[in-house]
Amino acid sequence: MKTAVIRGKNLRDVDAQLRITSIDADDPRFSDLIVGVDAWPTDVPNVVVLLGVPQHLGVERNGGRAGAAEGPFAIRSALYRMATSEVAPRIAQGDLAIIDVGDLITEGKTLEQIHDEQHDIINAVLSEGALPIVLGGGHDTAWPTIMALNSHGTSYSAINIDAHADVRPLKDGGRAHSGSPFRQMIEAKGALTQGAFVEFGLQKYAVAAAHADYVRNNGGHIEWLDEIRHDGFDVAWERTWQKLQRSSSVYVSLDMDGFASAFAPGVSAPSADGFTPWEVLDVLRQIAQSSYLTAFDVVETNPRFDVDGRTAKLAAAMIATVIGSLRRNRD
Amino acid sequence: MKTAVIRGKNLRDVDAQLRITSIDADDPRFSDLIVGVDAWPTDVPNVVVLLGVPQHLGVERNGGRAGAAEGPFAIRSALYRMATSEVAPRIAQGDLAIIDVGDLITEGKTLEQIHDEQHDIINAVLSEGALPIVLGGGHDTAWPTIMALNSHGTSYSAINIDAHADVRPLKDGGRAHSGSPFRQMIEAKGALTQGAFVEFGLQKYAVAAAHADYVRNNGGHIEWLDEIRHDGFDVAWERTWQKLQRSSSVYVSLDMDGFASAFAPGVSAPSADGFTPWEVLDVLRQIAQSSYLTAFDVVETNPRFDVDGRTAKLAAAMIATVIGSLRRNRD
Amino acid sequence: MKTAVIRGKNLRDVDAQLRITSIDADDPRFSDLIVGVDAWPTDVPNVVVLLGVPQHLGVERNGGRAGAAEGPFAIRSALYRMATSEVAPRIAQGDLAIIDVGDLITEGKTLEQIHDEQHDIINAVLSEGALPIVLGGGHDTAWPTIMALNSHGTSYSAINIDAHADVRPLKDGGRAHSGSPFRQMIEAKGALTQGAFVEFGLQKYAVAAAHADYVRNNGGHIEWLDEIRHDGFDVAWERTWQKLQRSSSVYVSLDMDGFASAFAPGVSAPSADGFTPWEVLDVLRQIAQSSYLTAFDVVETNPRFDVDGRTAKLAAAMIATVIGSLRRNRD
Repeated sequence: MKTAVIRGKNLRDVDAQLRITSIDADDPRFSDLIVGVDAWPTDVPNVVVLLGVPQHLGVERNGGRAGAAEGPFAIRSALYRMATSEVAPRIAQGDLAIIDVGDLITEGKTLEQIHDEQHDIINAVLSEGALPIVLGGGHDTAWPTIMALNSHGTSYSAINIDAHADVRPLKDGGRAHSGSPFRQMIEAKGALTQGAFVEFGLQKYAVAAAHADYVRNNGGHIEWLDEIRHDGFDVAWERTWQKLQRSSSVYVSLDMDGFASAFAPGVSAPSADGFTPWEVLDVLRQIAQSSYLTAFDVVETNPRFDVDGRTAKLAAAMIATVIGSLRRNRD
Repeated sequence: MKTAVIRGKNLRDVDAQLRITSIDADDPRFSDLIVGVDAWPTDVPNVVVLLGVPQHLGVERNGGRAGAAEGPFAIRSALYRMATSEVAPRIAQGDLAIIDVGDLITEGKTLEQIHDEQHDIINAVLSEGALPIVLGGGHDTAWPTIMALNSHGTSYSAINIDAHADVRPLKDGGRAHSGSPFRQMIEAKGALTQGAFVEFGLQKYAVAAAHADYVRNNGGHIEWLDEIRHDGFDVAWERTWQKLQRSSSVYVSLDMDGFASAFAPGVSAPSADGFTPWEVLDVLRQIAQSSYLTAFDVVETNPRFDVDGRTAKLAAAMIATVIGSLRRNRD
Repeated sequence: MKTAVIRGKNLRDVDAQLRITSIDADDPRFSDLIVGVDAWPTDVPNVVVLLGVPQHLGVERNGGRAGAAEGPFAIRSALYRMATSEVAPRIAQGDLAIIDVGDLITEGKTLEQIHDEQHDIINAVLSEGALPIVLGGGHDTAWPTIMALNSHGTSYSAINIDAHADVRPLKDGGRAHSGSPFRQMIEAKGALTQGAFVEFGLQKYAVAAAHADYVRNNGGHIEWLDEIRHDGFDVAWERTWQKLQRSSSVYVSLDMDGFASAFAPGVSAPSADGFTPWEVLDVLRQIAQSSYLTAFDVVETNPRFDVDGRTAKLAAAMIATVIGSLRRNRD
């Protein structure tokens, strides 16, 4: 069974202090319902696997400000305390299971080693038919998930919800970084369905003209934030959803800096403009309900710049929403 | 006259430092126009009575973080400085009066004693045909207002604008707390009109399934935040307003954590998602203009976590809007 | 040539530390593309001239909190680092040029002297057929631009995007301040087109009744924020745009406190309610694209109260958007 890989020694258990127990049996929290990899159930149609990747090596390579390594802890601090009106009944009915395999151990490793280990775990999760949710870490954590999707082989569409295009060239010697994952995805010529990559929410003063051209010249589609607002969010989303549906397997990468910094101050590279929580929540819910969602990551939460845990709570709310509305009709 | 109760010795006058005087006669501020209980007018159709309840005992009982006791001072600091384009002409015309009876004295009292004293004052205000506006304090301050509505006897509808349901059971020995007021309202079987209680803006990861069931099994209606956004705010509000109109007397409880924490960082339990200022302002204006508004409270402002007074200003803006647009066709 | 005035000795060059050079030739930043006054091009149809006015003397006269003097540096810090997907291709094609003439030297001068020097520079910029963009500084920096529009003589319409009306009387001895520029504009009886002044976004509890009356009694139009939201932003904007189009020359003044303080915490007088970034960005883009835009200022950014540069970034985003979408069919 593939879970042997997931159970490997390159993982650290979730910090015990996060594992709170609700004082009210009528009000179980995520912490009460999340299980470890050893409790992986059989015959549960919707299995979610949380994996933390606590590093910002790729952010530093990209010249960004450090702190995203603390993202998984902060996101779990919020998520584990959340109430469970949606998920508790589904878990009780055997319709849903939430597994947290903990954090990748990053100490003493190169970014490439960490990426390889993340690839192996995500690949195993995909092979089990479960949904991986990666808690970043910098946006380079998208690349090992993309590698795993390519390894897995099923064609997929991809959406990057972000202020930035993240298609910068690799650094000297071909080194990946937090600004490069979608160039790597395009260059890999893996299982990505042609014409099914959407950059959603890019800001015109946050993207180079050459990078926008690169995306479009390689079959990608850009939804600029200002045009989303001008045309109406629903109209822009419908355009996007049409493209994503070219595959029945959708990979969603959510960079927290795609939100306006009022809502997500704790990120590596904040933007004054950006999405609202409810805009992104509504489309994540739709994707999760569609049976198409194959992989999800939430990246660039940087607790060092957060205000009273606001960004970590927002990241957790997005994850809780995806879990609560997930419908996967697969075997 | 019932104002004897309101003038009682359990109240402390508004802090003198808040009572600024505008330097420009053409630009009177709320501070210049608010009067004390001794100046209660006759023959003014719209009389508003402000009451501060500076305690967070119920928040602490509920395991929340302290600070809401400082809410009334912070809200008045913002409100008293606000300009008066709407209210000054109406006061000049004898159409409106704003009375501030000060703060309940809370030192050395139990929460139950404070609740009883608040009940007596709100009951007297209702008997005078005036609109009470309570400045919390924790959300338990809703309970004495509910008791007063029940004592007063006129059937009423109720809306809680909140991220949370606040229908938790009482603590050991039947002790109220900031998470319990609407369970108390339901259990009291008082003057609440059947089917006319709406929980507006609840977040699915902030409410237990058992608590949502409790609300619905007892004739309450939940408008989940994500469904409000998905269906459209106006559509959801129309549903809500239909239910509230089952009575011609509407009680509105506004928990500041119903706003996204970007707009209201200074609360006991912040939520990343939530309402915008303009969404709530617009519905409060509609209710105030409808002649149906009977009681209003603004709770859970916690200045210890506020950013440059933002949350207190938001609370004050909501109160100023209600006062400015209030139309009560009653005797 | 009028640029002799602009090149005058009352200006200080942009701080050298702001003049970063992009490390990636494919990703030029505003800093790489902005030129000095000596590089003023010929035969470029769209020339933008940035001018910083680093003072808050008018804010202090108005009793406001100091800090706006640091606005130009903070705004440039954000703007100079921004990417250039829209502007780089247009500059390369000779369609656009961005000139930064630096900051007015304010040390040892009265506010009146500073205003006179700003007038002379803006007048010269207008005479060259270029678009002046003033980086405030307090809102009194609007007055010298208005004087220059009057000196220039072409009739214009005006919009103030703001929470406040800023039509207060002058202080003793006729002294201008940050709350008076639009009263000065009205009293000047200059080139302002009758009925073509709109106060856009005023908040009812931030404006005196007498000041609202003053605006309306003098041919101005008020779009109250709450009515903009109630009627729908697009409806209100269409009303506004109809009025502005009474002249083919539009002056836009953007007070950063017109935004909700969640988005713009770093201002002299924050408002809990207010516009979102995308609302204002969309109308600025429309105005810039219309060929009508004649002068633009962005005022009241106060870095002392900012959160991680959020407000300065927002101001820079508005400026970048105006520059990127500017279309001036003039000679």
